[in-house]
Amino acid sequence: MKMVTLEEAAALLKQHDNYLILMHKSPDGDAVGCAYGLCLALRSIGKKANPLCGDEIPELYNYITDGFEMQEFEPEYIVSVDLATADLLSGKAKDYAERIDLCIDHHGSNTGFAVQGVVDGKAPSCAEIVKKILDVMGVKINSDVADAIFTGVCTDTGCFKYSSVRPETHRIAADLMECGARSAMICRLMFDSKSRAKLDMERRVLETLEYACGGKIAFVCISKEIMEKSGASQGDTEGVASIPRQIEGVRVGITMKEKDDGEYRFSVRADDDTDASEICRKFGGGGHRAAAGCSIYADSPEKAKNAMIAACAESIGGDA
Amino acid sequence: MKMVTLEEAAALLKQHDNYLILMHKSPDGDAVGCAYGLCLALRSIGKKANPLCGDEIPELYNYITDGFEMQEFEPEYIVSVDLATADLLSGKAKDYAERIDLCIDHHGSNTGFAVQGVVDGKAPSCAEIVKKILDVMGVKINSDVADAIFTGVCTDTGCFKYSSVRPETHRIAADLMECGARSAMICRLMFDSKSRAKLDMERRVLETLEYACGGKIAFVCISKEIMEKSGASQGDTEGVASIPRQIEGVRVGITMKEKDDGEYRFSVRADDDTDASEICRKFGGGGHRAAAGCSIYADSPEKAKNAMIAACAESIGGDA
Repeated sequence: MKMVTLEEAAALLKQHDNYLILMHKSPDGDAVGCAYGLCLALRSIGKKANPLCGDEIPELYNYITDGFEMQEFEPEYIVSVDLATADLLSGKAKDYAERIDLCIDHHGSNTGFAVQGVVDGKAPSCAEIVKKILDVMGVKINSDVADAIFTGVCTDTGCFKYSSVRPETHRIAADLMECGARSAMICRLMFDSKSRAKLDMERRVLETLEYACGGKIAFVCISKEIMEKSGASQGDTEGVASIPRQIEGVRVGITMKEKDDGEYRFSVRADDDTDASEICRKFGGGGHRAAAGCSIYADSPEKAKNAMIAACAESIGGDA
Repeated sequence: MKMVTLEEAAALLKQHDNYLILMHKSPDGDAVGCAYGLCLALRSIGKKANPLCGDEIPELYNYITDGFEMQEFEPEYIVSVDLATADLLSGKAKDYAERIDLCIDHHGSNTGFAVQGVVDGKAPSCAEIVKKILDVMGVKINSDVADAIFTGVCTDTGCFKYSSVRPETHRIAADLMECGARSAMICRLMFDSKSRAKLDMERRVLETLEYACGGKIAFVCISKEIMEKSGASQGDTEGVASIPRQIEGVRVGITMKEKDDGEYRFSVRADDDTDASEICRKFGGGGHRAAAGCSIYADSPEKAKNAMIAACAESIGGDA
């Protein structure tokens, strides 16, 4: 993949037409925000453009997708946003995996699957890069585009909380608000809104809270029973993994989710001195230092839990 | 109180010396951040300055207060920050209630208790105003000052989530990060960190969750028993009031806290179409449209709860 500058990417997005913009499977706020935002921005300068995702766009993003209509055209120039590897394409988006012209991404691990790419591994969201390209293009960002891009900026930074946030992240947020982004509505929807079922599920999960290693490890379990009794959806479990790690004194937070056929799915969150991905690699998983995951197959939840706690204890040099 | 411009306030903070900076009782992030930030900034240009609060500064803000030493001097010029009324002074700070020279505040309801004042009711935090004054003064903001002021900016906006956030809020955050504010550490500590006792208290509070008005009203109770069993501190209950309102479909969230002598303290959070302060005024309380409070005295928690639910139901035009 040939790396290009923001200026070159801007030129590519001006000189072609009939753009198809690909999102990864299980699209998050950054993927949806970038794809719809870029699409609407291209349309605003007279281009034809459609977003494409193999999976359905979650209802959470209805304020972006409501009233959006697909255009009729034969795709000519294929762009991917927030896509680290073509393996993350699903459904119909997969058909374009081999012919992506331009990759816009913020994953340092990007596998370079496109003809050309603008990748900034330090950008906290892909939306920041899209915003910069639109600025270079001289596109006037309207309120719909601003809503979409703001969504990417705030969701991928945990509402401006993560260590990846840079001064320019806040300046971009300020610009987007001036272009009409409904900052408070979006932040509220993304971060301060829970279904009854999700809240009930979280309450039940907190009842499973256990400590190990003198409080340095915290463990919670999302059992099938909890999912059934609360009526929570799989999507509702997002965010639960960050709960045990938030507790004062906890260095490693473990969230175990009961799946079928003796599979227990783990999410591990670690402090700065601990490598969650190293812990998960022991069980064939992986991820980042701060957040990683793996599956353990066992004939009881106790066994799966104990195996993980032992691995975490070893990693932080304590007794489980 | 004579209203002054940012420029006049800046001049007043340059022409005097031996500044005493007053905080309100139960100081929050904005009060602590403004008082310590302004104090350190004044010291950095060769002035003597001390912060003063009648109550203890919560340990949560140790990263601001650690290593801070009080200076010896006779207070000459008295400044208040984030103080809406002199009634909110406590302890030793009360002694200065009648002689406040300059009031820097962001409450529209400011009672005008000082000789001169710079009050911007639209500023989401008092810290934003302090930051602007320091800019006009030409003070070079060091990393300690930046940490303190950033704390005010992020805590009073719920981490940039509230509708009070303006584009300049984000630009000020960007500036402070460039001056060395430890944004990620501060946001994590303020918003993503809980004591074991607090988490346990929240779990028990969620067990009291009840709905009324077909789900438009949600109610939780912080009983004395919950406080005892969880071992949570009064400070730990901060933030609980926002939980019931976060639930999808809920228009009014009620949090009732059991106090002594038949007093039940209510926090009411309302959606955009409902006036929480109007509801609380019925019981002799008050506050803002979105967030208000009051006390109800009753011989049982049930009676207090039912009185409040009935008032909320009336306000949203439904049956409790």
